[in-house]
Amino acid sequence: MSDIPKPSGTYAPVLMPFNADLSVDTDRLIDYCRWLLTQKCKLAIFGTNSEANSLCVDERIDILDQVVEAGINPADLMPGTGCCAMADTVKLSAHAANHGCGGVLMLPPFFYKAVNDEGLYRSYSEIVERVGNERLRIYLYHIPPIAQVGISLGLIERLTKAYPDTIVGMKDSSGDWSNMKAVLEAFPDFDMFCGSESFLLDTMKLGGKGCISAIANIRPAAIQHLYENWQGSNAAELQSELIDFRDILTAQAPIASLKCAISHYSNNPAWNRLRPPLVELDDATSHSLINALEAYGFKMPGFG
Amino acid sequence: MSDIPKPSGTYAPVLMPFNADLSVDTDRLIDYCRWLLTQKCKLAIFGTNSEANSLCVDERIDILDQVVEAGINPADLMPGTGCCAMADTVKLSAHAANHGCGGVLMLPPFFYKAVNDEGLYRSYSEIVERVGNERLRIYLYHIPPIAQVGISLGLIERLTKAYPDTIVGMKDSSGDWSNMKAVLEAFPDFDMFCGSESFLLDTMKLGGKGCISAIANIRPAAIQHLYENWQGSNAAELQSELIDFRDILTAQAPIASLKCAISHYSNNPAWNRLRPPLVELDDATSHSLINALEAYGFKMPGFG
Repeated sequence: MSDIPKPSGTYAPVLMPFNADLSVDTDRLIDYCRWLLTQKCKLAIFGTNSEANSLCVDERIDILDQVVEAGINPADLMPGTGCCAMADTVKLSAHAANHGCGGVLMLPPFFYKAVNDEGLYRSYSEIVERVGNERLRIYLYHIPPIAQVGISLGLIERLTKAYPDTIVGMKDSSGDWSNMKAVLEAFPDFDMFCGSESFLLDTMKLGGKGCISAIANIRPAAIQHLYENWQGSNAAELQSELIDFRDILTAQAPIASLKCAISHYSNNPAWNRLRPPLVELDDATSHSLINALEAYGFKMPGFG
Repeated sequence: MSDIPKPSGTYAPVLMPFNADLSVDTDRLIDYCRWLLTQKCKLAIFGTNSEANSLCVDERIDILDQVVEAGINPADLMPGTGCCAMADTVKLSAHAANHGCGGVLMLPPFFYKAVNDEGLYRSYSEIVERVGNERLRIYLYHIPPIAQVGISLGLIERLTKAYPDTIVGMKDSSGDWSNMKAVLEAFPDFDMFCGSESFLLDTMKLGGKGCISAIANIRPAAIQHLYENWQGSNAAELQSELIDFRDILTAQAPIASLKCAISHYSNNPAWNRLRPPLVELDDATSHSLINALEAYGFKMPGFG
C-alpha cells in the first residue's frame, strides 16, 4: 500500500504548450503547473485535454522528469499512462510510481473495439503485475465517448477484489450521471472523480473524491471552491454557475477552446497551438468565444 | 518517386505469434511470412489483425529489422505505421522507407474523435514532410468500424494533389462498397485495396489493385487465385465461394478465430495466444469453428 497521500480535490488535465515546431515547451508547462497549484488545483498531467495521446512515450517520460526536477511535488501529480500497447502503459506507470506520483489515470487499451471484460481484466491485471510497485495507485479512466472502450461495474468489481490497494478509483467522463451514481453506490470505498464539474456536487454527496475537469485548466479556483463548500448553503448555486460557465467552453471543440482562452488571457499566441489531428478554432469562433468570456466577466488571476 | 515495384495483389495482415510471456516469437513469425510468400501472398505486417496496436514502436522496429535480415524482400512488405502520436508514425514510416518497403499502411491518428479533415490533412502532410524520403509510399487506412476516424474523399483529393508520388493508395476496410466504388471512380490513379476479399471482384472491375484481408492469413491462395483470374469466366463463382468461406471465420471474433484455426492446422497451441485486451476463443466456440472448417474441407497446404 502506498505511503503517498491519497488524491482528492480538483485536478486539471494540464493543457500542453507547444513550440512552433510542435515540440513541448517544458518551461512554459512548468510555469503553468505552478500557477494551477497556486489555485489549489492539482495536476492530471497527460490527460485527454493534455493531448497526451499525441505525445510519444519517451516525451512523456522526459516531461515528467523535468516537472519533478523543477520541484513540483509528485504527490500532486496524476499522470495519464494508458496506451494501446500494454508495455507502453507498464513503462509509463512504473515511471510515475517510481517518482512517487499520487496516482496514475489509466485508459483501457483503446484501439480494438468490442473487447470484453475478460480482455480488459487481463490487461489491467498484467499491468499491475508487471509494474510490481506497491506505490502504484491506479485510477481507471472511463471515457467511452472518446476511447469507445469503457469500464463496466463488473470489471471494477473484479479488479478491486484482486488489487484492492492498487486499483483504487476512477475518473468517469461518460457524461452519464446514472453510471457515476451506480459506481458510487456499488463501491463506496472506490474513489470516484467526476470528469466534469457539472457533476461535482452530486458526486460529493455520494462520497466521491473530487473532479478532474478540462475547465479546471482555466478556472480552477471556482471548481475547488465548490469542492471545499459542497456542504454549504449555497452549494447548489455554485454548481449551477459552474454548469453555465462550462457551456461557454464546450459549445465548440473543447481543447481548442481552452487553448484559445488561455492564449487570449495570457496574451501569448503560442498557447494557441495544437498537435494534429487537433486544430485551433477559426477566427470567427475564437472571437465569439472571447466575447462570451468577456461578457461573463471571466479572468485568470495571476496567470500569464 | 520510389524505384520499388508498386504493391498489387493479395496481402495478409500477418498474424503475430507470441511466446508464453507474450513477447513476439520472431522466428515463428519469419517462418510464417515465408509460408505466406510461397502462396504468392505478400505481407501487410503490423496490420489490425497483426495486433500491431498492441506492439510498442521499438518492438515493431526490431521485428521489421529481423524480418528483412532473414532475407524477406522488403518490396513484399507493407508495414502498418499509423499511431496516435505523429512522431511515432514518422519514426516507423521512415524506418520502413529506409528498408525499401513497397509501401506503408497508415492509420489516421485514432484517439481523438470527431476530428476534421483539416486536422487529418495536417497530420498526414506533416508526416510526409518529416519523413522526407522519396521512397516513402503511403496507403491510407480507412477502417472506421475500429479506428472510428475515417478517410473522406475530400481528404484523399487534398492529399493526392499535394503529394501525388507519396500518397498513392488506400485500404478500405469500411465494409461499405459504396465508399470503395466512390473512391475508385473519383480517383482512377489512386491504388485501391479492398479490406475484405468479399469485394475483390468488384474492386478489380473498377481498376483496384488487390486485397488486404484477414482471411489471407490462412487461405491466401484462394484469394490470390481470384485476383489472378478476375476476368475469367468463373470469377463470380470464385468470388461467391470466398464470401461463403469468410462467413465461417467472421461469425465470431475474427483475430481469435484466425489464431484458433492456425493453431489447429499447425498443431501448435502457441499460435492461440493473443495480447490483451484480445482473448482467445472459448472451448465451445473453438470446437464449432474447427468443425465448420473441417466440414468445409479446409486445409493449409505446406503450413506448420
